[in-house]
Amino acid sequence: MPGTLSSEDRARLDAFYREVQQQSETFAGYPATANFDYRELFRFLYYPLNNVGDPFNQCTYHLHSREFECEVVEWFAQLMHAPEENWWGYVTNGGTEGNLYGLYLARELYPEGMVYFSQDTHYSVSKNLRLLRMPHIMIRSQPSGEIDYEDLNETLRIHRDVPPIILANIGTTMTEGVDDIDRIQRLLSDLAIPESYIHADAALCGMTLPFIEGAPRFDFAAGCHSLSISGHKLIGSPVPCGVVLALKQNVDRIARSIEYVGTLDTTITGSRNAITPLILWYAIRARGHEGFGQTVNECLACAEYAVQKLNAIGVATWRNPHAITVVLPKPSPVVMEKWQLAVQGDLAHIMVMPHVTREKIDILLADIAANPS
Amino acid sequence: MPGTLSSEDRARLDAFYREVQQQSETFAGYPATANFDYRELFRFLYYPLNNVGDPFNQCTYHLHSREFECEVVEWFAQLMHAPEENWWGYVTNGGTEGNLYGLYLARELYPEGMVYFSQDTHYSVSKNLRLLRMPHIMIRSQPSGEIDYEDLNETLRIHRDVPPIILANIGTTMTEGVDDIDRIQRLLSDLAIPESYIHADAALCGMTLPFIEGAPRFDFAAGCHSLSISGHKLIGSPVPCGVVLALKQNVDRIARSIEYVGTLDTTITGSRNAITPLILWYAIRARGHEGFGQTVNECLACAEYAVQKLNAIGVATWRNPHAITVVLPKPSPVVMEKWQLAVQGDLAHIMVMPHVTREKIDILLADIAANPS
Repeated sequence: MPGTLSSEDRARLDAFYREVQQQSETFAGYPATANFDYRELFRFLYYPLNNVGDPFNQCTYHLHSREFECEVVEWFAQLMHAPEENWWGYVTNGGTEGNLYGLYLARELYPEGMVYFSQDTHYSVSKNLRLLRMPHIMIRSQPSGEIDYEDLNETLRIHRDVPPIILANIGTTMTEGVDDIDRIQRLLSDLAIPESYIHADAALCGMTLPFIEGAPRFDFAAGCHSLSISGHKLIGSPVPCGVVLALKQNVDRIARSIEYVGTLDTTITGSRNAITPLILWYAIRARGHEGFGQTVNECLACAEYAVQKLNAIGVATWRNPHAITVVLPKPSPVVMEKWQLAVQGDLAHIMVMPHVTREKIDILLADIAANPS
Repeated sequence: MPGTLSSEDRARLDAFYREVQQQSETFAGYPATANFDYRELFRFLYYPLNNVGDPFNQCTYHLHSREFECEVVEWFAQLMHAPEENWWGYVTNGGTEGNLYGLYLARELYPEGMVYFSQDTHYSVSKNLRLLRMPHIMIRSQPSGEIDYEDLNETLRIHRDVPPIILANIGTTMTEGVDDIDRIQRLLSDLAIPESYIHADAALCGMTLPFIEGAPRFDFAAGCHSLSISGHKLIGSPVPCGVVLALKQNVDRIARSIEYVGTLDTTITGSRNAITPLILWYAIRARGHEGFGQTVNECLACAEYAVQKLNAIGVATWRNPHAITVVLPKPSPVVMEKWQLAVQGDLAHIMVMPHVTREKIDILLADIAANPS
């Protein structure tokens, strides 16, 4: 490939790099891990890899990492207690695509279905539902972020003529509230609703709760039909990614045979990133179940540390059980800007991801103390 | 990040790398450039970059490359003669997302619209239309891959009560057929259709035709309302990507203000790849309009070389005007497998991308000659 950058352009890239380095020092408001090192995979970036279509099928495009992708999906399927031989999935471009896939699947199964989700649900779900032209009703949330079961119950009761499609949050964006899948299933059962679909948006907690003793169950064994989990959140990735999992019997219904690429294409996108499957594979193999367990529990302890320290200086701070999200009153603009804190109404949160150490928390706390809101 | 790969896993990666190296030697059936070198950008892969939401808005997530993304989109907007101050776009995960976006926009503008596209259209468009729940009619193609204007005209005439949404192919997948935007507009005008929308799937030819003297016009100036162009095809990228462009006045209609990320999110996905915008920026700045022009015209000459050489050995080979796609009768399975040739019915094609040199063509021809189909 001919052509090189001018020295001005190279200087711009260098300046951008310094900016990224600096900003990453005070990166505590978003659910993305900042400490990872995938340099062993960089050599693959000289090739046009593409996991076009279904990862589990053969393809005439040979430059792909499907074998690694399948292992990643299988690892998540086991983590989520998927029924043997009845699961399917792929590595997505992130949580939104996973939710879009789950909702699409639900719509194909129940074209007249009504979607229910709490008001604390990520904004991309409303966007997805509009794209999919699916009728939906937003349900009240509790202050914790968890869905209001009374409101859900009343609303389901009024619409018993159409199959419910529940989008359950396993960790809401703002407060990491977790919807109780067991309780939702009891509601459905008490109302004698014969057919329903539950998709779990487990973007963050799909990679935390399975590693925490006593945490609630939300997976296939608990009754979900599909799940979306992010890869760039707890695991960490330079490029947003995720995994979507669904029951194979349902996926088979929307498969279409496509001659052109010699593959059954059941994914949302056609051409697909083949590097992110390698990244997730690398992380899983290098760290394993035990490594992630250790990381998650360190984050939990550090989140609790932040809650106690903040309360000690008079900032009314809290977190949900098993949560690494620390919720506090919106601090001063200086602090929010520096630490890139996400805000909703009067609340802000600190995301205690693996790179947010106690030392970082102490600096952030000092900034909050020095800059009253 | 703790953890390292076992020596077995490292050996697997090494073996995979050798496989990729080997397969890339005989990669001539897909529209993806294989000669690129973005090593100067690898240093950014240590950070959780994310271009969440609209690239043209501010965001509280500071680790992003939106500034570079905007320049990339602007470069494409100029290449596509977008009307000044009335264009918008973003870097997508590939052509499918760009087409999905264009069709979504068209649906929001014309909720009752009927979509028309030729039978040579990429399979992902049917998938998109199902996702979007848009009524559609497939139109016959000519042998060249171009839409059959008579069939289009007859079909439009029958459905004059609903606004037509035309998905035009600017380079079909199999034969690189190009729909004539001028002629489509005349059809619409002759039928006195007051409102219509044209989206161009310019995945491949969006980066070839603008650099070829005498090539047909298909862009905003020619009458398109939105366009999708791939980044991993002619430009080359280790990760599939693309650019979608649309008229700003239309995009503004579907924008929604989202407090959480402090940005107007008008994109399909939420979290977005920030590396592919850097890759496209790098390619554009390093090579420029002139560099791409040279590359495209070399590909054209090499494609013509392949056509003549194949015909000389008795293989009935052809290509469309201005096309880098060389269409030939399906060769023997040995050749198809080795060179990863895509097949449709009795046809196969060789994609003369920048890495497919005359030397490669000669080896491929020798394989075809030695393995009669």
